[in-house]
Amino acid sequence: MLVGMAIMPHGNEAVYPPDEETRKLHENLKKIGRELRNAETYVLITPHNVRISWALGVIMAEHLIPWLPFNDVDVPVDDEYETDRELAQEIFLGARAEFPVVDINFATYSGRYSRFPLTWGEIIPLYFLEKNPLVLITPAKLERDKLIEFGRFLANLLEKAGKKVAVIVSADHGHAHSEKGPYGYAKESKEYDRRIVEMLKSGNLEGLLEFTDDFITKAKPDSYWSLLMALGILREIPMKPDLVSYACPTYYGMASALFRR
Amino acid sequence: MLVGMAIMPHGNEAVYPPDEETRKLHENLKKIGRELRNAETYVLITPHNVRISWALGVIMAEHLIPWLPFNDVDVPVDDEYETDRELAQEIFLGARAEFPVVDINFATYSGRYSRFPLTWGEIIPLYFLEKNPLVLITPAKLERDKLIEFGRFLANLLEKAGKKVAVIVSADHGHAHSEKGPYGYAKESKEYDRRIVEMLKSGNLEGLLEFTDDFITKAKPDSYWSLLMALGILREIPMKPDLVSYACPTYYGMASALFRR
Repeated sequence: MLVGMAIMPHGNEAVYPPDEETRKLHENLKKIGRELRNAETYVLITPHNVRISWALGVIMAEHLIPWLPFNDVDVPVDDEYETDRELAQEIFLGARAEFPVVDINFATYSGRYSRFPLTWGEIIPLYFLEKNPLVLITPAKLERDKLIEFGRFLANLLEKAGKKVAVIVSADHGHAHSEKGPYGYAKESKEYDRRIVEMLKSGNLEGLLEFTDDFITKAKPDSYWSLLMALGILREIPMKPDLVSYACPTYYGMASALFRR
Repeated sequence: MLVGMAIMPHGNEAVYPPDEETRKLHENLKKIGRELRNAETYVLITPHNVRISWALGVIMAEHLIPWLPFNDVDVPVDDEYETDRELAQEIFLGARAEFPVVDINFATYSGRYSRFPLTWGEIIPLYFLEKNPLVLITPAKLERDKLIEFGRFLANLLEKAGKKVAVIVSADHGHAHSEKGPYGYAKESKEYDRRIVEMLKSGNLEGLLEFTDDFITKAKPDSYWSLLMALGILREIPMKPDLVSYACPTYYGMASALFRR
């Protein structure tokens, strides 16, 4: 069954908070990790692993290896995580009739060489979580309805799974908060983040559908497509939010939220 | 234009030959590397990178990083190779109307984090080749006709490309040559390899279509699906073989061949 869903950021500052606001976020992320410690598997939706223009991905490789930190910042996590291949296979096989989805093996189909690299997009949420098997899902910029439908499909499948599963949405929000950042400044980043935090607090993500494509492009989030999946999950399995916090210590917005049954 | 096509193995013994037969293979691979040194880009078809059940892959990530050797054997190659993104994009965009094909980015769409790992399947051919930009293509076990068609498509596209391109097919053959190997012994491995070498020597790969599925399953090659692409290439652009050699120092068969215009 689905035991909960967390929205977690993947900026280094979430691990090494430079100010009070980010410290609060950090503390909430630690609390989320503790609250989800009874999950047996995490389904981790990440925007910084494989990125395919028209297909969702399910990583099938057995071993998941931290490989690519951001700015060479060391975030202490385990050397290796394991894929929950049974659940990964169920998700892939269940999804493929209705969704463009690929099963991503690497090197060999099983054994020691069946490995896949992890980036900061996975490593930073994992830092806050107890170690559990993972299913990595990689979003794509599909039609909004399709992403919501995928969330609904996922919620129903996880609900029927014979184990406790938590969904982790690795997501950062507007990336154009600072002239000094790589994407410069756009007022839409601030507005996007304000509305995301409002939605997280209310527990109602339907407002995502009010954002225009142009607004999203200007706000430069990596969260939007994964949050549409989260919206689909919440449509099937209503959950209540807690531990919502927000910080923007550099050029991108980071938020935490835990959705509980 | 397409300047040539090489069939190259990816066993460690090709680099560190343990016997005379394998040394001959090693020498031929070095000759192939020298003969292809004027290519400006290699299209490298590899069975040990991403493996998707129903889609071909084109790796779009900018930087390609040797990551996963076999048996921890160090094969001295560069720390980083670059993708020829222009050609990779042309291949993906050209193929997607007719073939199931995905464009694989990783971490970010460009810049230092746009990286992807390489395995022995790529590293060992690269050891023998002058350094050039690469387009990695990952095969899938599609219908035979579809793989041949993809080879034809690729040949025509490369022929029109404004640069000299060589195709490298990274391939090992039967993997069940020895009771002591991980796949045990099957007489079909020997027969598969015998017929492959015969085809490489004659330069006519049409005999691939005579193999039954059952025979291929028993012979346990990783070469079959990539060689169907090579067959498609040869149907469009006839080339003559040279530097054919074969060795089986452990449990799998390795072969070299260079197809010249």
